[in-house]
Amino acid sequence: MTRVAVLGARGRMGSTSVEAIEAADDLDLVAAVDKDDAIEALTESGAEAALVFTTPDVAMDQVIWCVERGIHVVIGTSGFDDEKIARLRELAADHEGIGILVVPNFSIGAVLMMRFAAVAAPFFESVEIIEMHHPDKVDAPSGTAVRTAEMIGAARREAGSAPLPDATTSDPDGARGAKVDGIPVHAVRARGFIASQEVLFGDPGEIFGIRHDSSTRESFMPGVVAALRGVTARPGVTVGLDTVLGLTD
Amino acid sequence: MTRVAVLGARGRMGSTSVEAIEAADDLDLVAAVDKDDAIEALTESGAEAALVFTTPDVAMDQVIWCVERGIHVVIGTSGFDDEKIARLRELAADHEGIGILVVPNFSIGAVLMMRFAAVAAPFFESVEIIEMHHPDKVDAPSGTAVRTAEMIGAARREAGSAPLPDATTSDPDGARGAKVDGIPVHAVRARGFIASQEVLFGDPGEIFGIRHDSSTRESFMPGVVAALRGVTARPGVTVGLDTVLGLTD
Amino acid sequence: MTRVAVLGARGRMGSTSVEAIEAADDLDLVAAVDKDDAIEALTESGAEAALVFTTPDVAMDQVIWCVERGIHVVIGTSGFDDEKIARLRELAADHEGIGILVVPNFSIGAVLMMRFAAVAAPFFESVEIIEMHHPDKVDAPSGTAVRTAEMIGAARREAGSAPLPDATTSDPDGARGAKVDGIPVHAVRARGFIASQEVLFGDPGEIFGIRHDSSTRESFMPGVVAALRGVTARPGVTVGLDTVLGLTD
Amino acid sequence: MTRVAVLGARGRMGSTSVEAIEAADDLDLVAAVDKDDAIEALTESGAEAALVFTTPDVAMDQVIWCVERGIHVVIGTSGFDDEKIARLRELAADHEGIGILVVPNFSIGAVLMMRFAAVAAPFFESVEIIEMHHPDKVDAPSGTAVRTAEMIGAARREAGSAPLPDATTSDPDGARGAKVDGIPVHAVRARGFIASQEVLFGDPGEIFGIRHDSSTRESFMPGVVAALRGVTARPGVTVGLDTVLGLTD
Repeated sequence: MTRVAVLGARGRMGSTSVEAIEAADDLDLVAAVDKDDAIEALTESGAEAALVFTTPDVAMDQVIWCVERGIHVVIGTSGFDDEKIARLRELAADHEGIGILVVPNFSIGAVLMMRFAAVAAPFFESVEIIEMHHPDKVDAPSGTAVRTAEMIGAARREAGSAPLPDATTSDPDGARGAKVDGIPVHAVRARGFIASQEVLFGDPGEIFGIRHDSSTRESFMPGVVAALRGVTARPGVTVGLDTVLGLTD
Repeated sequence: MTRVAVLGARGRMGSTSVEAIEAADDLDLVAAVDKDDAIEALTESGAEAALVFTTPDVAMDQVIWCVERGIHVVIGTSGFDDEKIARLRELAADHEGIGILVVPNFSIGAVLMMRFAAVAAPFFESVEIIEMHHPDKVDAPSGTAVRTAEMIGAARREAGSAPLPDATTSDPDGARGAKVDGIPVHAVRARGFIASQEVLFGDPGEIFGIRHDSSTRESFMPGVVAALRGVTARPGVTVGLDTVLGLTD
Repeated sequence: MTRVAVLGARGRMGSTSVEAIEAADDLDLVAAVDKDDAIEALTESGAEAALVFTTPDVAMDQVIWCVERGIHVVIGTSGFDDEKIARLRELAADHEGIGILVVPNFSIGAVLMMRFAAVAAPFFESVEIIEMHHPDKVDAPSGTAVRTAEMIGAARREAGSAPLPDATTSDPDGARGAKVDGIPVHAVRARGFIASQEVLFGDPGEIFGIRHDSSTRESFMPGVVAALRGVTARPGVTVGLDTVLGLTD
Repeated sequence: MTRVAVLGARGRMGSTSVEAIEAADDLDLVAAVDKDDAIEALTESGAEAALVFTTPDVAMDQVIWCVERGIHVVIGTSGFDDEKIARLRELAADHEGIGILVVPNFSIGAVLMMRFAAVAAPFFESVEIIEMHHPDKVDAPSGTAVRTAEMIGAARREAGSAPLPDATTSDPDGARGAKVDGIPVHAVRARGFIASQEVLFGDPGEIFGIRHDSSTRESFMPGVVAALRGVTARPGVTVGLDTVLGLTD
């Protein structure tokens, strides 16, 4: 039984996480803190792990506060880039045994899709990505699609794969999307989709596809729970759910 | 039993059609003519209908030759544009009772996809097309995808549909494809595909999709047979399989 | 502008419909009645059309009450079988000019899927249905899948289609689903699906598919609005949205 | 450059493999032997590895003959069950350094699908398999689908996963397929499919799918080439392509 505190507990991800933690047999919610609450509730309640969903302007200070008090941290706040992760590594070096888990994507389905795509990448001649989102999304292609393409591109480079075959000579206009790291990414924006992505690999006589459709915030909860279960046994800084899920060492 | 002749009988579509006609109970193959053969074989064999798969430079003359001799014609040769169709209409006016059927696409699946897409178009807020072909194809998007988009665009205009919703503000690079008549068309080129297309319609809380995957020339044969069965009972010039299949009046 | 009343306005479909009617430019919500409210609100508010989502035990009496007072009726209550529809026809005969529209399924996507499946049915050698629902559903296959199979079966019988090819000799166990009217229906029950269905047609070298994914009650609203717009111009009893949508005469 | 011989070189898999070996830069085809040819061609040509596609009645003797002469063996002949594999292990023990690779499925796409399905299995509440084959197939479900279900079942047992949720109480008839190791497998048989399979995982608010479509014997060739490349460096008996492809240790 791990005693868990949530920071940013009344936001959308925070409040859904509070419910998921309460429903998990081996997690004990001991504090649910939001911006008007005192962070000291974490030490007072004996929290062993903190789940951070607060805004980027306060999240780093709260992480430092937790780690200095021996509390493991799962970071769901966005914007933890290479520079911030370097600062976390220094922090971890000063506090041995404390786990800091930065999670850019809590969707286990999305993490599996990216991991499997990277493993499959060297085995096929062709690969393209189609991502489908609601039409209120302002950017294209999606961050997950870009990350998937980068992972596929890196895997193919490492394996010495040939460039993708493409005889196109006439394509005057172009559609929504991009070529990322040599991998074509097509961006569909249609009412009815929330967040979907398909990775299509091709070889002569076969197509291999991986697809993930996500429709509710609930779909992130298994990832939140897995992160909280895994962080206490994983000292130092870890980025992404892959190792927690046992997908990589 | 309709007596059928094939012109261009040793080409790829012609030779596959010869087999399909021989396999059809109600069609009787009486002549299979190619470029070194005399076209008089058609009258000598008593052909009632001719299937034309010869090259564009000779096809029109052969069609005229047939119609003048009272032979119904199914035209599979490409390049029969508005100008040539106008000439066919004059020809038909002079030879009452003879059917001339111009078929840009013999795939019944593709014809159904386009027809159903046009019917569904006014009922949904969003629509996008994804077409997937082998990477040796030189043009993007495919002719079928462009035609589908035009049919959807026309149906939406006629119904007074609003423009597709799209909040995209950042899409700096673009991917293979085009926006045709306001409809985004995404073009995938990957080994393993022959000719596939998916039309995706969306409304709040639902996605409606129509998909066609074609992998062999055999898939055109039901359309060839339906055209030959239908042409003798349909005097004048008809374009496309829709009316022969009973999809439109 | 049509003045509309909702009966059963606080139920799930009723309350979502109230919002949809308020959002429609050409519909004016004049009464929202539930079980503790007086039905006289309809005449007092001058309602021209009533949308009925009350329970089966009271719905028929309310429909009679409306029709006798010259109010057109759209019936969303389930259980309007052949016997009840016969009673509605007698009622309509006594009240010329009043429209009674019985709608077993308000999803335009589902209606299109069934209609297109029936049109496509005679053109392909093979057809099977896969329906996918949440695992809390107690019956298999789904009502929509059964209805789709019946429509496909009827269309194939009418066209004189051969039985589906199937060389299976060893299939000792069987899976969830049924063969309905000769058409195999496969029933998937998995968390994450709400209500999805795919109809797969096959011929040598090609697959033609129609798919509908529905995830929220919102997806029924375009059908509710179309029914209310169409009922006032369609005297007598009509079953299903097909004619209102212009899919059949 | 590995010198390769093919046994059963004029059969369907054998003859396609001969072409693939000739097209591979690092494989040198030195002997192509069929039933009327002398097997001594292998030693005379200095073959280092043999690819065996002969019939089950002669394959084991040929494998023994090769291994005793220091030739590595890739076995594509079907029917190498546990008993035969036990005999191969004895044979390998007597001939250190020689690789014997038994390959039940040369499709890299199918191998990836099964491996990824086993990895993903513990992370989702629901999983079902849909396999789609041509209607001339006599058995249902397919061997690949059964093997996939067994791997998923084993992975879920090992992870202590709960049984799949299923509230079905009315499913009177059943469809083609089976429940294998607790996993529902649906078997579609339709003209136009060759060999396709989809594994669908579900959690609240998300669906994760892996799909493989195979249409020609060519699609097995990357697996044949990978097996021949890998067998010489892998002494002893290995079953399946997984280790050769680096998917497992």
